[in-house]
Amino acid sequence: MKVSEIGEFGLIDTLNKMISAARLNASPDILIGIGDDAAAWRCSESIQLATVDSMVQDVHFTLDTITWPELGWKSLAINLSDIAAMGGIPRYALIALALPADTPVAHVTALYEGMIELAKLYKVAIIGGNITRAPQVSITITVIGSAGKTILKRSAALPGDTIAVTGYPGSAAAGLEMLSRKLELRIRTTKYLKNAFVHPIPRIAEAQTLVNNGINAAIDISDGLLGDLRHICEASRVGARIVTDLLPIHETVKAGFKEKALELALGGGEDYELLFTGKAEIINRIRSEIQCPVTVIGEITAGEPGKIAIVDSDDIPVTVTHPGWEHF
Amino acid sequence: MKVSEIGEFGLIDTLNKMISAARLNASPDILIGIGDDAAAWRCSESIQLATVDSMVQDVHFTLDTITWPELGWKSLAINLSDIAAMGGIPRYALIALALPADTPVAHVTALYEGMIELAKLYKVAIIGGNITRAPQVSITITVIGSAGKTILKRSAALPGDTIAVTGYPGSAAAGLEMLSRKLELRIRTTKYLKNAFVHPIPRIAEAQTLVNNGINAAIDISDGLLGDLRHICEASRVGARIVTDLLPIHETVKAGFKEKALELALGGGEDYELLFTGKAEIINRIRSEIQCPVTVIGEITAGEPGKIAIVDSDDIPVTVTHPGWEHF
Repeated sequence: MKVSEIGEFGLIDTLNKMISAARLNASPDILIGIGDDAAAWRCSESIQLATVDSMVQDVHFTLDTITWPELGWKSLAINLSDIAAMGGIPRYALIALALPADTPVAHVTALYEGMIELAKLYKVAIIGGNITRAPQVSITITVIGSAGKTILKRSAALPGDTIAVTGYPGSAAAGLEMLSRKLELRIRTTKYLKNAFVHPIPRIAEAQTLVNNGINAAIDISDGLLGDLRHICEASRVGARIVTDLLPIHETVKAGFKEKALELALGGGEDYELLFTGKAEIINRIRSEIQCPVTVIGEITAGEPGKIAIVDSDDIPVTVTHPGWEHF
Repeated sequence: MKVSEIGEFGLIDTLNKMISAARLNASPDILIGIGDDAAAWRCSESIQLATVDSMVQDVHFTLDTITWPELGWKSLAINLSDIAAMGGIPRYALIALALPADTPVAHVTALYEGMIELAKLYKVAIIGGNITRAPQVSITITVIGSAGKTILKRSAALPGDTIAVTGYPGSAAAGLEMLSRKLELRIRTTKYLKNAFVHPIPRIAEAQTLVNNGINAAIDISDGLLGDLRHICEASRVGARIVTDLLPIHETVKAGFKEKALELALGGGEDYELLFTGKAEIINRIRSEIQCPVTVIGEITAGEPGKIAIVDSDDIPVTVTHPGWEHF
């Protein structure tokens, strides 16, 4: 059955039943979920957060390298990650889908399965959305979250701050490279890299640990480590110095991609790890409190705003190509 | 200059300057506007509202029948209308744009001019967004609003309620018909119909009057009067009876479209007028308090849920084709 056959209202009905069955919207704060002109909820927290991001077929994904449930997971994950990068808790999602009329309904329900799986994990309610016809698949998700008194900003980095990152940057880009070039790697490598690309984990709990320990500056790595560090540097009017030998490149990426691994770690996008800055002693404390790896990779400098020096452990400048994701 | 030449960050910078110049985001409630992982604001009202809607090229609009500033206005207006239909005040907008790489930058700034014009009028801040490449233009806007203690719901209509509508339903559909069939009508007619199609006015103040007078059930007419009345009837588990002779069809639509005018008024979408139900005496009071025309067109019945009887003033059933907008 195709979406043109079941029709807009039939499709919406099917998806709403999935959301109901998952009991996503059971919170008593939700006054009106899906099915009215707008969603309505009661909010008690004083700081609200909102973000929107799109995944467009053949721009951000191809159906060769990602399955429908993975696409659903990832489309929502990248937005949860943006809320995490502000030090917030994601609460509500609105899903705007654009689909070709001949899309099988089973593909759309599979997309929702992936999305719902992640939403359940982080107690995010899907309270609204929109479905429209279009020549290619596109998924635009808005996530609304809430925060306590402090939020993490791009503009709060200070000269002398230590720069740290969660997880293993470059893994998602290595995964994409493996999938799109159909590289045959070891089974464990394949599994790790694929997962890094299709199943990013939003660092929500980790971001709470940052906020609770007094970190003020953070960003999620969606455009690549260097590109996103540059965003922090520009917003904070500071420079930075990165030591390549400190970069936490995953062993499978090193093994599978050799000398290209550094380029992937610095320039490869879509990791959705947290890049943050703060006093060295705070970051040391955080490393012991956080479950995922946290690695110090350099420091914020008083240099030219937005300028990043990339050096090795002998302080010799390293030349890197591929400065991060440009959308046009 | 094309967007591929100015690049994503160049384009974002240009648009942000327009938003700054318009002082859209001057509210002290806004903690972080555009330029971080997510927007952040302080909220004092307890009920929050959110809605999302997309306009896709060659599905919802063609660049033959709408200019870029009109498209910007309309893309935002349809979302403000959804917040109005809940009895809320729109506060914040997030704009997700998808554009072909060869789109002239001047078209995108013209789009924003239309959007900003409307945003200024209703004091809506543009606090975030996303820009991506895509084969065709698409604009997905999320609007977040707030409401007092009462919201207007689709599910609150009761048997015996009077049904009323603001403005002149069918005017937007008549405008589209005129523009796409290149009909040559009188100058005043052309002006009225074009405006109805490209410049819908969200009924925000009018909706406040409804809420303040104790109306509980409303919807905005985006899918056509009958289609949206059916949404109310289904959500409220009631029937309805519409008297065609009561329908407020604009004189220019009657003159320009003769016997087709009724079909346009009942089935034509994109009017963004408010359709609401309530006690006759309340609606009478509202008619004198509201600036735009308010017309009683029928009543809610205890009949089969979702079933709408369409009759003339002699109670003779009227047959109507075109039951409203289906998106696939």
